[in-house]
Amino acid sequence: MSKPATPVAPPLKDELDIVIPTIRNLDFLEMWRPFFQQYHLIIVQDGDPTKTINVPEGFDYELYNRNDINRILGPKASCISFKDSACRCFGFLVSKKKYIFTIDDDCFVAKDPSGKEINALAQHIQNLLTPSTPFFFNTLYDPYRDGADFVRGYPFSMREGAPTAVSHGLWLNIPDYDAPTQLVKPLERNTRYVDAVLTIPKGTLFPMCGMNLAFDRELIGPAMYFGLMGDGQPIGRYDDMWAGWCTKVITDHLGLGVKTGLPYIWHSKASNPFVNLKKEYKGIYWQEDIIPFFQSVTLPKESTTVQKCYIELSKMVKEKLGPIDPYFTKLADAMVTWIDAWEEINSPAQSAPAADAKKDGPSSKKK
Amino acid sequence: MSKPATPVAPPLKDELDIVIPTIRNLDFLEMWRPFFQQYHLIIVQDGDPTKTINVPEGFDYELYNRNDINRILGPKASCISFKDSACRCFGFLVSKKKYIFTIDDDCFVAKDPSGKEINALAQHIQNLLTPSTPFFFNTLYDPYRDGADFVRGYPFSMREGAPTAVSHGLWLNIPDYDAPTQLVKPLERNTRYVDAVLTIPKGTLFPMCGMNLAFDRELIGPAMYFGLMGDGQPIGRYDDMWAGWCTKVITDHLGLGVKTGLPYIWHSKASNPFVNLKKEYKGIYWQEDIIPFFQSVTLPKESTTVQKCYIELSKMVKEKLGPIDPYFTKLADAMVTWIDAWEEINSPAQSAPAADAKKDGPSSKKK
Repeated sequence: MSKPATPVAPPLKDELDIVIPTIRNLDFLEMWRPFFQQYHLIIVQDGDPTKTINVPEGFDYELYNRNDINRILGPKASCISFKDSACRCFGFLVSKKKYIFTIDDDCFVAKDPSGKEINALAQHIQNLLTPSTPFFFNTLYDPYRDGADFVRGYPFSMREGAPTAVSHGLWLNIPDYDAPTQLVKPLERNTRYVDAVLTIPKGTLFPMCGMNLAFDRELIGPAMYFGLMGDGQPIGRYDDMWAGWCTKVITDHLGLGVKTGLPYIWHSKASNPFVNLKKEYKGIYWQEDIIPFFQSVTLPKESTTVQKCYIELSKMVKEKLGPIDPYFTKLADAMVTWIDAWEEINSPAQSAPAADAKKDGPSSKKK
Repeated sequence: MSKPATPVAPPLKDELDIVIPTIRNLDFLEMWRPFFQQYHLIIVQDGDPTKTINVPEGFDYELYNRNDINRILGPKASCISFKDSACRCFGFLVSKKKYIFTIDDDCFVAKDPSGKEINALAQHIQNLLTPSTPFFFNTLYDPYRDGADFVRGYPFSMREGAPTAVSHGLWLNIPDYDAPTQLVKPLERNTRYVDAVLTIPKGTLFPMCGMNLAFDRELIGPAMYFGLMGDGQPIGRYDDMWAGWCTKVITDHLGLGVKTGLPYIWHSKASNPFVNLKKEYKGIYWQEDIIPFFQSVTLPKESTTVQKCYIELSKMVKEKLGPIDPYFTKLADAMVTWIDAWEEINSPAQSAPAADAKKDGPSSKKK
């Protein structure tokens, strides 16, 4: 087939933002150019706001540093973490698009077993635009993929599935291990390409990694809060986990789906396990209580929106996890602040083009 | 590496039976010879008992036909289906081994993407001998496989997993579709080799296919009853589904695991969709009630053995599904008969070598 004369717009070009948290120049984008260049980027600069982050030529982006976050959110900026990739959720907050893809700046284009470069974004979009199957397990994995379907014994009334809220992608090369596992298996690399997308069943929690993640902002955005991590907090590297646990109980409650599996990215660099251990150790301890807590969460029927669910969840966090450590009381308050910020930034007035560009704008922007 | 001088016994050689239901000569075993020949086979001959089933030379087997089943079980033989592959569960009943692998006679050795023949039995054994992870989802699939582990955020207290009761294998070539899907997609073939084994989470039902299935008979055997199907029954092709639903609620209750994924077999022949439709249509209709029923089952705490769970389940089937159709009342009674038969055949006296060989023996046996 010959190439069409006019370039075809990539899927969801005007409905998706790519959110990247970073502290360094974004040279990694060069490798993603063929896949990302037609999309809009939201870059959340972590750490020193006076530092200049270089973005390769030709990308359409807006960049927010800590000064921007403080200016835009005012006192509510306290809910956005500093010196931790948890700051990425600020990008989710200010996006005006329906879909978000977020990726870490140490993630590169992976290859499938045939040697072909994987368009991770295209796979995420496919995952998000086809339904999930949270209510019954399909043994041939995603029944909406080409060449697959529902198997014998799958109830017909459930074959329409549920709207997909989250697409969780995986990583070749450096697996997403915790510090103890990194220390024990420093040389382990993930070389297994599993050619599957599957729905995480209703009622089942999973460890959501923020490295290679896409979601429907309209369906689940307000639950994608990455918590209080990093600077001034007793814990790190649990930002995406926290978001994943909250997201999963809320998608379960609202009848939405979460998929995991394809696409893979190439994760290039293992972070320092000793540094990670310091960030993680309270999380490793606390998660033994956090998981049973989330497994027991039942949201009230009246909670019919993500925001309402999230506020209910914050109350339960305060009540049930607060006694473990004052951190959880602070986190529960930050969850409420996050929802306040979400509603302020995403109110109809703010979303309109007439919104005060001076207050809301990023510190740098390029089109 | 050179071959060892003395052949190494295959894993679990004396602890596993291969159960094959059939109506024809077992030529398909030729292809499985390198993998099965050292194991003991239990062949359950369906249909006309006067017909002779040829078994290729060199296999160690015992064969039971309908006359044997009637003689051995007496009036309890009513719980064993006739003219339906559901009769395979008779083999589970009379086995004296800890593990069962059951396979259909239209299933052949599949190849992995590198072209290597897959030793399905070895993979099932590996699945059964390593734990499951039913309480929390691991995004890199089976954490006990080489090159994989638990990912960041997986609670450490859950990393010992649960004993694996069931290993559900998949099929390349002809997928296990119901009649309507067969009719709509007559040419669809499963060509996707998904290199994964995963645990079906606690609380999630799945469509268990009996074509390529292994289980720990000591852990879950009495739940592997394939129901009343075929001759004289209003339904067929739901035998394995029924066993799967019962098994899953009982494994969940007892804290056991069910794995699905690898190994693949090559499923050679699509059954006739018009015949299948006739067998299935009541099942397709009834399953819309059966699934919500199983999703709502809660077994009492006092049910601490598979047998006790199964008897409780039979009561619930009678109470909740009986009103749908008299078939379910009959099925509930057959479930009780099955457990009676299981306890009779598997009582310590019967298991001992002194048991009455005349009453218990197969009609043909070869060593």
